[in-house]
Amino acid sequence: MRIDLRETAEILQNSDKILLLCHSHPDGDTLGSATALARALTAKGKKVKVDCADPIPKDFSFMFENLANEDFEPELIAAIDVADIKLLGKEYEGKYGGKIDLCIDHHGSNMLYADKVCLEADSASAAEMIYLLLKMMDADITPDIASCLFTGVSTDTGCFRFSNTTVRTFEIAAELAKHGADTYNIIQVFFETKTKTYAALERLALDSMRLYFSDRCALICITQDMYAKSGSDESEVDRISNLPRQIEGVLVGVTMRELKDGNFKASVRTHGDIDASAICKRLGGGGHMGAAGCTLYGTKQQAINSLLKEVQAEIDAYRIN
Amino acid sequence: MRIDLRETAEILQNSDKILLLCHSHPDGDTLGSATALARALTAKGKKVKVDCADPIPKDFSFMFENLANEDFEPELIAAIDVADIKLLGKEYEGKYGGKIDLCIDHHGSNMLYADKVCLEADSASAAEMIYLLLKMMDADITPDIASCLFTGVSTDTGCFRFSNTTVRTFEIAAELAKHGADTYNIIQVFFETKTKTYAALERLALDSMRLYFSDRCALICITQDMYAKSGSDESEVDRISNLPRQIEGVLVGVTMRELKDGNFKASVRTHGDIDASAICKRLGGGGHMGAAGCTLYGTKQQAINSLLKEVQAEIDAYRIN
Repeated sequence: MRIDLRETAEILQNSDKILLLCHSHPDGDTLGSATALARALTAKGKKVKVDCADPIPKDFSFMFENLANEDFEPELIAAIDVADIKLLGKEYEGKYGGKIDLCIDHHGSNMLYADKVCLEADSASAAEMIYLLLKMMDADITPDIASCLFTGVSTDTGCFRFSNTTVRTFEIAAELAKHGADTYNIIQVFFETKTKTYAALERLALDSMRLYFSDRCALICITQDMYAKSGSDESEVDRISNLPRQIEGVLVGVTMRELKDGNFKASVRTHGDIDASAICKRLGGGGHMGAAGCTLYGTKQQAINSLLKEVQAEIDAYRIN
Repeated sequence: MRIDLRETAEILQNSDKILLLCHSHPDGDTLGSATALARALTAKGKKVKVDCADPIPKDFSFMFENLANEDFEPELIAAIDVADIKLLGKEYEGKYGGKIDLCIDHHGSNMLYADKVCLEADSASAAEMIYLLLKMMDADITPDIASCLFTGVSTDTGCFRFSNTTVRTFEIAAELAKHGADTYNIIQVFFETKTKTYAALERLALDSMRLYFSDRCALICITQDMYAKSGSDESEVDRISNLPRQIEGVLVGVTMRELKDGNFKASVRTHGDIDASAICKRLGGGGHMGAAGCTLYGTKQQAINSLLKEVQAEIDAYRIN
């Protein structure tokens, strides 16, 4: 059943023991949204735990500071920023499949797997929704909460650069800054700092960039070999996904990365009316209009070919419309 | 004489023929601020011209659309975002030296060369000041004006990433978005689009990066040879200045570029309490705490050495404090 933010606030206010689940390979939005909500609910006297199948990357560990996060038997299980039960990770999918009471999400591709779903597909981040939810619940927006939410707001919009950024995004960013979010340091960590290993990987990745379809598609392919050469690893690779689309005239930017099992994960970023999620859906993935992902099987060349085929179909459809 | 924004508004309201001067090598803030002010004053029935010694780069040409910008004998000459009369460019310095009635600026290093100076050194951009000025003057903030100002606000803060960004910056950005600024396209043009020639230059520049002082200083040196190899030129080089400081642990990022006469222009970007303007002042330049510039004479190695000497002095001073 679809519900709105006000009904979501009521459900949360009527529960005393709440488990908040984040998606696997956690990012700033799923973690920032869940920890901000957990802090606000804890301040209202509730027991809350934020859980994720994967370890929390060190850049996000500040979000868990002073958060009790103890185990208990939950009355309410809510998934935050999780579009598909599969995205909880295999183990958690088995454990929580069919048991999610509430989902708060902003992915248009949400599979509606939860009992009650609060979905705003035009929200740039789950964090924007959580901010409005906390205001409705009359929660005190502490600087800690503001920093968690600002991390979600900024990371899911590429620091206000993606097309999902709206007037509301800027307004909420301003509100969070006013509430004491550590905007400068958050932006420094997630957007303006490169480890030396990442900088080396980025150069190798840029060297691998190839242009297709009269330069309307740029494709980067990161191999396990590049991780070895740069000293970097998969944890640093997300930021590279934005680079191919930056080249002038490119409508579709693709970043492929070789997994340890030899298959490839692809991130697709598009401009304008080209639908990244349509490209990825046909390959078993999903996401948003401007940013989506999928997994590709086979050799590097097979993976590139199957992806380029779908990119071409989407570019052709775009030209006809 | 130093004056505040309200007095500035009065001076502008009491003049009917106003010349607004931008600094040479014009950027988004000097042009966006001047054209926004010109549009608002024109709407109030005044004759206004925006002038600059250098040609307007094509990315800023939208700011001049539907702006009459005709010549006339001005009653008031105002310099916008111009810290030093020299920055008007040689010809304009000769023409307007001693004749500037009003200066609206946010550079702490302002030389107070104008008759009346409205200076807010803690403002991230002149555009923020102009926004507040227009509100005081009850000007109608049209989408065109909002776009001009948003260009200044975003470009002078590196799209909200520099340390000059404040709560007020986010608030004004939100206001401008609400007034119809074309935020997405402005950000795309100035931050998310690389020409192929720029992308090639960036890679050559990154290849030239060297680390000094236990990796606390990163230095890039762009030569005329790199322009030739990449097909790029000096007009595309500004964005590279932010790259050296991004490396983790680097406190001072330096980007030097060889001028046609063989001398070098240096851009210095710093983190935290390291004062970029102190480094550049000792070499005849100036700027802000976190971002400053100067010109260096001699061979490439001499230029690097003289700059590194001042960087070291500043890093040493920082360690002692």
